[in-house]
Amino acid sequence: MPHTHQTAPTQFVEANGIRFAYRRFGKPDGVPLVFNQHFTGTMDHWDPAMTDGLAMEREVVLFDNAGVSSSSGEVPTSVEQMAANAVSFVKALGLPKVDVLGFSIGGFVAQEITLQAPDLVRRLVLVGTGPRSGDSMATGTPEGAKIFGATYAEPDHLWLSVFFTPSQASQAAGREFLKRFRLRTKDRDHEVNDRVAPAQRASIAKWGAPRERPYDYLKAIQQPTLVVNGSNDVIIYTVNSYILQQNLPNAQLILYPDSAHGSQYQYPGLFVRHVSMFLSGTRVERA
Amino acid sequence: MPHTHQTAPTQFVEANGIRFAYRRFGKPDGVPLVFNQHFTGTMDHWDPAMTDGLAMEREVVLFDNAGVSSSSGEVPTSVEQMAANAVSFVKALGLPKVDVLGFSIGGFVAQEITLQAPDLVRRLVLVGTGPRSGDSMATGTPEGAKIFGATYAEPDHLWLSVFFTPSQASQAAGREFLKRFRLRTKDRDHEVNDRVAPAQRASIAKWGAPRERPYDYLKAIQQPTLVVNGSNDVIIYTVNSYILQQNLPNAQLILYPDSAHGSQYQYPGLFVRHVSMFLSGTRVERA
Repeated sequence: MPHTHQTAPTQFVEANGIRFAYRRFGKPDGVPLVFNQHFTGTMDHWDPAMTDGLAMEREVVLFDNAGVSSSSGEVPTSVEQMAANAVSFVKALGLPKVDVLGFSIGGFVAQEITLQAPDLVRRLVLVGTGPRSGDSMATGTPEGAKIFGATYAEPDHLWLSVFFTPSQASQAAGREFLKRFRLRTKDRDHEVNDRVAPAQRASIAKWGAPRERPYDYLKAIQQPTLVVNGSNDVIIYTVNSYILQQNLPNAQLILYPDSAHGSQYQYPGLFVRHVSMFLSGTRVERA
Repeated sequence: MPHTHQTAPTQFVEANGIRFAYRRFGKPDGVPLVFNQHFTGTMDHWDPAMTDGLAMEREVVLFDNAGVSSSSGEVPTSVEQMAANAVSFVKALGLPKVDVLGFSIGGFVAQEITLQAPDLVRRLVLVGTGPRSGDSMATGTPEGAKIFGATYAEPDHLWLSVFFTPSQASQAAGREFLKRFRLRTKDRDHEVNDRVAPAQRASIAKWGAPRERPYDYLKAIQQPTLVVNGSNDVIIYTVNSYILQQNLPNAQLILYPDSAHGSQYQYPGLFVRHVSMFLSGTRVERA
């Protein structure tokens, strides 16, 4: 039986002085897709509907970056250092070419990976994320501050506010998501320690800080890129996805209706089809 | 043999005192898709790669609205009247429910059709278009004025500038498009008369004129909507597609890279797959 999101064992590889925890599963064919996770998230915060869906046609690699959950080391205080660690991890696996997916802060890391190791990256998928110095990205949004500052009946309910809109349909999709990401019961990642959030926040603040001509760096990302977000992302405003698409040389944008920071968890079937089309498409078809 | 874009005969139906020219072909199953054409365009300005591609899974209906080419009557000087004529045409065909696609000014008409006859329209596809009072839509763009004001070695070359970016890849796609839309040789529509462009321009100016809270009307369009454009539309600026998506209650946005007003002609295979997924999807999958 091939492994799935639920059954793939956590493995370890050493690189750059860090013992990286990872899981690898899916169709062992073509270019693997490496997932970069959001703020304070672990391998177990990915939605199996998304990872298993994408694993139907390719190998997927989940990992904890340095200092996160089952990986050793400390979370660096810059996105650049996070990306350097991620590049070391991918190289330690002996992978000569990968597709890279990044969600939220993982999308910042994915951009930096591509800039630091352009020959390593074939195609890029940026989900719920934004460019350096994007709209409200240095300080975070007021909505985000409120959502992350609130207390919840159950800790997981935080994600209903972070990833979904207040609409009935979106919240119902959110409750389905919460069930799915708790399905794996054995060999789960433990929650991150208290040093993770401050270090990640420091990285986000530097990445988001104002700069002159802030989007010029995007011209260096020549890889075909798919940018995906919800219509109403209040954690990293949706307009930042539009800015990414407008400034990347070869990017397609997809925005979903009535959805927020976690639109890919609201429409996992559609997301998997869109990403699969993008990753498998010919040069012309991929757009 | 079922009819295709090349072989479908031009038929006529009378409604609202107008004799409408139309062509109808494709899989006679489910909800037909009615196409609304761009400025000065006729049924023969559609790309067969797009119409035949979409006709694989549904019936498609091309038509000349009032006063355009093979249809009788005069082009009205408002989008609202154009939409009223289009609604009469659809009803004259006896169709109780249709999907509506509109390109450029045809996208304005498609929005107005939906507002005037909400029960007639199931889903909406808006391509290379914008909202009432959108960015630079009253006067048109300076780039558009230059492109439409220039002279070309061959008249068809106008469309290389209107629909495609100056990049080598986009221009090459444009030349392929020009071949395809000249493939039909028999029973072609004649070019529009001299009264068409001024009347359509007057309609565009009224539609684009500044208003208070201009995008509020979009809240009345409850139909699932797919908005598609190129990354660099200089005829109706790309940001207008973003504005549509942000203000429609249930809209998905797709923007393609290195493409302009006619992005669907640059990536016809991908466009057909995206639109087919959208039109055929379940409520949840459709997003």
